[in-house]
Amino acid sequence: MTEQPLRLIIHAADEASLARARSNAANFLAAIENAELELVINAGAVAAALACPHATDRHLRVCANTLRNNGLDAPAAWPQVPAAVVHIAERQRDGWAYIRA
Amino acid sequence: MTEQPLRLIIHAADEASLARARSNAANFLAAIENAELELVINAGAVAAALACPHATDRHLRVCANTLRNNGLDAPAAWPQVPAAVVHIAERQRDGWAYIRA
Amino acid sequence: MTEQPLRLIIHAADEASLARARSNAANFLAAIENAELELVINAGAVAAALACPHATDRHLRVCANTLRNNGLDAPAAWPQVPAAVVHIAERQRDGWAYIRA
Repeated sequence: MTEQPLRLIIHAADEASLARARSNAANFLAAIENAELELVINAGAVAAALACPHATDRHLRVCANTLRNNGLDAPAAWPQVPAAVVHIAERQRDGWAYIRA
Repeated sequence: MTEQPLRLIIHAADEASLARARSNAANFLAAIENAELELVINAGAVAAALACPHATDRHLRVCANTLRNNGLDAPAAWPQVPAAVVHIAERQRDGWAYIRA
Repeated sequence: MTEQPLRLIIHAADEASLARARSNAANFLAAIENAELELVINAGAVAAALACPHATDRHLRVCANTLRNNGLDAPAAWPQVPAAVVHIAERQRDGWAYIRA
């Protein structure tokens, strides 16, 4: 066990996984001080997130491909990534852990 | 290809993924001598695992958050982790691979 | 951010995740020059891939355990791996990123 800080991507790709991801995110934030956490959503998870706000939404990273392909708009406060798949690969290359909720 | 041993988290979060995870675990154990394997279950996978024992259950790590939030009890022989999401992030930080079944 | 090239496993384990995985693969290939990409399929994703060809099929790696357990044959052009779970663990040990679609 090293002392390296935990940096985590939680990924949700449909409505059911978004619900789990939000619960995972809340548990992670409660357990880890100064956690670095991103909740990356693409595919069906994007419309599900738009339909229902959550306390962990400040950690969202929204796939711009999904928004464009589905004619959706996200709140300006939600940071977008051009492609969730690329963002997730880059984060892991840079040492982040990954969980698919 | 290095000679570093394989250490793997298999993660299941619902009933369908638990069935795949158990099959994955059996295949992994059959292929890798002295494998280090943990089958981490949370969300809907926990009740599904309790309902139906399996030959790979000695590799289970059960999310205590899920047990508490759903009023479930797990067999004393099943090791628990306080939060599956934290455990999975820590294992990856320490060099374990991860598959979501 | 390092300059290390991106190497990515996209994993699909059922029909819905295969559809997302193929979209993820197309987005990844469009964004990353000289990408190293494998689309690893097992469980229900194998029959779904056989039923419907796709432009990204040259990146497929098919789980031979799934083929054998379900009495399926894959096209000779599709490379097989003996066990998807082992292949995914080995790739991550060797530095590849992983996304479960």
